[in-house]
Amino acid sequence: VHRPNSGDEGTGPRDGIDEFDAIEAMGTRFVAAARARLPEGPLPPVGEVWIGDDAAVVASGTHAQVLLATDLVVQDVHVDLRLCSVEDVGYKAMMVTVSDLAAMGARPDRALASIVAPPDIDLQQLASGLAEASEACDCVIVGGDLSGGPVVVVSVAVYGALGVGPATGPLLRSGAEPGDRLFVTGPLGGSAAGFRLLRQRLHDRPPGGQELPPSALDRLVLAHRRPRARLDEGEVARLAGASAAIDISDGLASDIGHLARSSGVGISLDAVPVIEGATEEEALHGGEDYELVVATPDPRRISDAYRSAGLRPPVPIGWVTGTPGEMVLRGEPLPPGGWIHRF
Amino acid sequence: VHRPNSGDEGTGPRDGIDEFDAIEAMGTRFVAAARARLPEGPLPPVGEVWIGDDAAVVASGTHAQVLLATDLVVQDVHVDLRLCSVEDVGYKAMMVTVSDLAAMGARPDRALASIVAPPDIDLQQLASGLAEASEACDCVIVGGDLSGGPVVVVSVAVYGALGVGPATGPLLRSGAEPGDRLFVTGPLGGSAAGFRLLRQRLHDRPPGGQELPPSALDRLVLAHRRPRARLDEGEVARLAGASAAIDISDGLASDIGHLARSSGVGISLDAVPVIEGATEEEALHGGEDYELVVATPDPRRISDAYRSAGLRPPVPIGWVTGTPGEMVLRGEPLPPGGWIHRF
Repeated sequence: VHRPNSGDEGTGPRDGIDEFDAIEAMGTRFVAAARARLPEGPLPPVGEVWIGDDAAVVASGTHAQVLLATDLVVQDVHVDLRLCSVEDVGYKAMMVTVSDLAAMGARPDRALASIVAPPDIDLQQLASGLAEASEACDCVIVGGDLSGGPVVVVSVAVYGALGVGPATGPLLRSGAEPGDRLFVTGPLGGSAAGFRLLRQRLHDRPPGGQELPPSALDRLVLAHRRPRARLDEGEVARLAGASAAIDISDGLASDIGHLARSSGVGISLDAVPVIEGATEEEALHGGEDYELVVATPDPRRISDAYRSAGLRPPVPIGWVTGTPGEMVLRGEPLPPGGWIHRF
Repeated sequence: VHRPNSGDEGTGPRDGIDEFDAIEAMGTRFVAAARARLPEGPLPPVGEVWIGDDAAVVASGTHAQVLLATDLVVQDVHVDLRLCSVEDVGYKAMMVTVSDLAAMGARPDRALASIVAPPDIDLQQLASGLAEASEACDCVIVGGDLSGGPVVVVSVAVYGALGVGPATGPLLRSGAEPGDRLFVTGPLGGSAAGFRLLRQRLHDRPPGGQELPPSALDRLVLAHRRPRARLDEGEVARLAGASAAIDISDGLASDIGHLARSSGVGISLDAVPVIEGATEEEALHGGEDYELVVATPDPRRISDAYRSAGLRPPVPIGWVTGTPGEMVLRGEPLPPGGWIHRF
């Protein structure tokens, strides 16, 4: 979870590109420590993926390949408790972590949930939200830790594996090839638009822009409060020969940038599917939609597989180019960046 | 990590027994959610251990038994940045989580580290502390998350397995039997005494009690800042037929209470080994020593195994009785409770 939602109350102090630099430097330090343990051969060892993808892949010892992922949800950075419930926070912390496994085409299996909370927080509501997401994702919470603290922090760690089917590796960010088609698993901008609506309601401002039926408004608010990890979509894409994937946590523009850098390719978008009631800006930069972006050499195969599995059809958005660094939308350079800082 | 270290600056809001009640209620909710996934048979399934031991044991799908544990370190609850460095915080967060695996007789293998930090915190120092513990524990950090926030929170999740040797199950809290001998892996009270000394220095107060040589003072401070997970001791105890174990995070009195309740037994202590410079009170109730308490029907076998492995000899402290709820020290009732709240 990377997108600060705190809006005009002040954004998180570590938002923006610094976070990625800091993570990279920390990752370098951790790998140096690993060298002491694994003095020979490549790091990560063959079959493993460490820092830099949605989830880590571990294949050590006698164990089969397993996946590990973790995400933080921090009050006033990622969530505003005036705009969502304590249950929403628990639900979201679990779901966004599981989404990292969805982006690898994997399934979650067991999770740990650690909670920091001030004394006025209802822990049983927080647990209910976690449990609801646990049920929805088919992932049992088997442990955790609890502490007091000045704001709510929920840290979920998920352990999972590649599901059934032929033995294909996990879907990495680094697998995209020039010529691959790109699609997303659903229209975007819902979470950012829902966040905007909730803030407008909080400040008694009328919702801007077009008139929307109540059902569409509810859908946007739900997209913000109750995102869904696209586990079926990730697994079916992996089994149908996708080459790379990432989940949309930071925003489409930012996340395809991660994928392009990992793969050493460029990206040309010809369409951005926008959910009813959101703006294209929100769809491009809002983040937290948790739809998947998938690259594939064979889009027809994935469309067929989605139809057979009863999933919504994948939405084509563009293609992968052979020019590293190139980021184009309808022929124009795509402005870099992710977060919307000015709700 | 359960022991609030905030002393007279105000203890953490969730310290004390409430934490255990809250965790139990949350665990009940998580198991209810698991029932939807695993509609038949016992929960946890055979071969698994969920909330309530030092680490969770997972044996799902086609995978061998693996262990998962997580711990939180929260600024002003578990650590005071006037008394220890940012590196210490990283080191401690990793080490105390690994200690949960030591208490199961298991080895850590891979870890995830999630960090919340205000902007003035040097993240590379935090990473150095994490990396140092990672090296010392032979456990590679393969992922994590990073966010801004008002105080430092480090949440480490560790994935591990039972190490080499004959196929014995993990050491549980619930395995102690009446007649078993109890021992600890080293003298206690060092972390609490080190914390007391650091606070006396901070407030320019002379260290109370006996005169200590500087090397002993340093040892106490180090015990507080740089605890060591007793991985060899846990594994050798498991392989030498120990029946139960727990690590001393809350304090000897509190932690043997957990072990006794899990096993449905009583405990009679005849000795409390106190490290030079600490008080018996600190040894009983100080916590954060991360030595192991081990129960065994065959103390001679464990002593021999420790000697063969070049480990410090186990220190006998008492035995397991058949009277559930009984907690006795030298024939007198042991006052319940854990944390020292009044430094």
